[in-house]
Amino acid sequence: MSIDYQILATDPNSSARLGKLTLPRGVVETPVFMPVGTQATVKAMTPEELQGLGAQIILANTYHLYLRPGVEIVRAMGGLHRFMNWPGPILTDSGGFQIFSLAKLRTLSEEGVTFRSHLNGESHFLSPEQVIALQEGLDTDILICLDECPAHGVSEEYVMKSGALTLRWARRCQQARTREDKLLFAVVQGGMWPQHRREQAQAMVSMGFDGYAIGGLSVGEDKDTREAMLDATVPELPSNQPRYLMGVGTPEDLVEAVTRGVDMFDCVLPTRNARNGMALTRFGRVVIKNAEHATSTRPLDEVCDCYTCRNYSRSYLRHLYVAREILAYRLLTIHNLFYYLDLMAGLRRALAQGTFLKFRQAFYSQRQNGGTPSV
Amino acid sequence: MSIDYQILATDPNSSARLGKLTLPRGVVETPVFMPVGTQATVKAMTPEELQGLGAQIILANTYHLYLRPGVEIVRAMGGLHRFMNWPGPILTDSGGFQIFSLAKLRTLSEEGVTFRSHLNGESHFLSPEQVIALQEGLDTDILICLDECPAHGVSEEYVMKSGALTLRWARRCQQARTREDKLLFAVVQGGMWPQHRREQAQAMVSMGFDGYAIGGLSVGEDKDTREAMLDATVPELPSNQPRYLMGVGTPEDLVEAVTRGVDMFDCVLPTRNARNGMALTRFGRVVIKNAEHATSTRPLDEVCDCYTCRNYSRSYLRHLYVAREILAYRLLTIHNLFYYLDLMAGLRRALAQGTFLKFRQAFYSQRQNGGTPSV
Repeated sequence: MSIDYQILATDPNSSARLGKLTLPRGVVETPVFMPVGTQATVKAMTPEELQGLGAQIILANTYHLYLRPGVEIVRAMGGLHRFMNWPGPILTDSGGFQIFSLAKLRTLSEEGVTFRSHLNGESHFLSPEQVIALQEGLDTDILICLDECPAHGVSEEYVMKSGALTLRWARRCQQARTREDKLLFAVVQGGMWPQHRREQAQAMVSMGFDGYAIGGLSVGEDKDTREAMLDATVPELPSNQPRYLMGVGTPEDLVEAVTRGVDMFDCVLPTRNARNGMALTRFGRVVIKNAEHATSTRPLDEVCDCYTCRNYSRSYLRHLYVAREILAYRLLTIHNLFYYLDLMAGLRRALAQGTFLKFRQAFYSQRQNGGTPSV
Repeated sequence: MSIDYQILATDPNSSARLGKLTLPRGVVETPVFMPVGTQATVKAMTPEELQGLGAQIILANTYHLYLRPGVEIVRAMGGLHRFMNWPGPILTDSGGFQIFSLAKLRTLSEEGVTFRSHLNGESHFLSPEQVIALQEGLDTDILICLDECPAHGVSEEYVMKSGALTLRWARRCQQARTREDKLLFAVVQGGMWPQHRREQAQAMVSMGFDGYAIGGLSVGEDKDTREAMLDATVPELPSNQPRYLMGVGTPEDLVEAVTRGVDMFDCVLPTRNARNGMALTRFGRVVIKNAEHATSTRPLDEVCDCYTCRNYSRSYLRHLYVAREILAYRLLTIHNLFYYLDLMAGLRRALAQGTFLKFRQAFYSQRQNGGTPSV
């Protein structure tokens, strides 16, 4: 299909923009954060809870679902939406990042990548064509081309060679695609070299994809380098198509990337940190197991409207976490996802109202207050 | 307060009865199943979910809350209801069963019991008076007297000596009580000797409690012995007061005990089995990890109205369970609690409509069909 992406507003002082992506399974307002549903579930949440938190689209990991339960099973169950009971849009990654970060003994060739499962050591081979077939088998809404994600710190020569392979794989993914009702995004790599980021972006754009993902960031580089890579990449991408920054990041990362013109995000940080007992709030981080919370009647964040903050004290959350109760992971996940999704909704409102700069300033000023709400 | 317990209907063919217990924090229709919220949370559930499943009253364990987070913290947070966000009635046990099943190195004396925490080995002493003070500190609605729960297989002499101590402790609990707005139940022990069960019940009744718990069952005895102990105990208890069978049991146990005139139940079976991957259905048990479910589009139970059965296949539940996803424990807990609470609601409806015998027959006939729904 031809992509239906409308830019509804742009910020005059930055590259930030408000957009609306219309997909067969729902409308996605951007900038958007996509909760991560690695194994066909956003950990600890039901689909109804995600909708209640304001999630518009979620991400699932092709690598994980390919290994378990297997794409054939998901297909036999009527596709990923029906399998997991999530009716809205789903973006699947290509599996590339997991193959390069989780899998063992991987071997790259022109044809594709051979690797061993992190679950049981079984050997597998995936080509760009198979990766598209897997995502079409899952019947998700936005597909990602297979790419190589070079490790942080590899040589410039390696990044160039890898980038050339990722371009050839992207072309093959484009040709392998059989479903025109789904969007296909290419991944722009280029390591930490602005020039290679620019060239990689230009080459992908010349092939013509529905949207562009920016990969290979948040792999160990510092914040300035990460932002410099965005500054090199984003201006090369078409202004009327969605830009997706993969696997990034902290609330500050999101605000900075939106400022630089990025539209879509995913990250395990809010959900994973929740399960590790860390709440993210507009005033900073709360480590719930700390003894100071044992007798605290305060919620995680006094000015937060989430279910957790409306109903539970830090004392109770600390008790649940120390006692390893499942409800601890649920309540902290609800809070963290609400915070991320509410932050994005705030950014969208500010863009619609022409107050983006003011919103950004308030965001940083609250965090500098360091845990003391100004109410 | 004087107890407000009305018997609304009795079954002409058995001792089963329909009742209504009115407490300051809510009305409890009996026969009732109380989900177990050991550590101030019914594992994996929110209070709103429990209400949605039809829970009217829950149980919490004094022993666990005494050790962690400590009754003083719960009291400082406004009591257990506010701490855990459950507005309805709560029954707390005395801690007796946990001291005799979980704690280490316990030593009994006339004065009380010394034991070591199962969490960290710390030594603690609890008297009957302290156990009442702890429960009043938690501010729960139904309190239980401290008792000794003799291990299965001890001598008749031990059971008699232990029963006499439990009687003296019950008297001390009665005298230690300071809150007349809460109900106090005594525990009837007596091992596996009908005569001691009868005498223990008579002695407790002569002291005059608000209700009577039947303890020391489901400790390893067979089903016939368990039912014989109920047959010995229940007729000795006042017909106008609630009878609570502690820690029992399977769906069959519940139906048999209701038939024998028991009104209240608690058991970890539905919640614990859920977390171990076992669903309880009207047609029998489903072990979700079994390979046969990998490609099954069926719900756990075709004729079940619970959220899990309305939305998820066995295939998806198996995937979640094998992948150790929190959602697996949630969805199986929802189903199992719904099944238990719905079974009790069915028993109450049948008692109201005078069709108890028919309901009982249908219950057994469905289970004999062994997994094949008759729809």
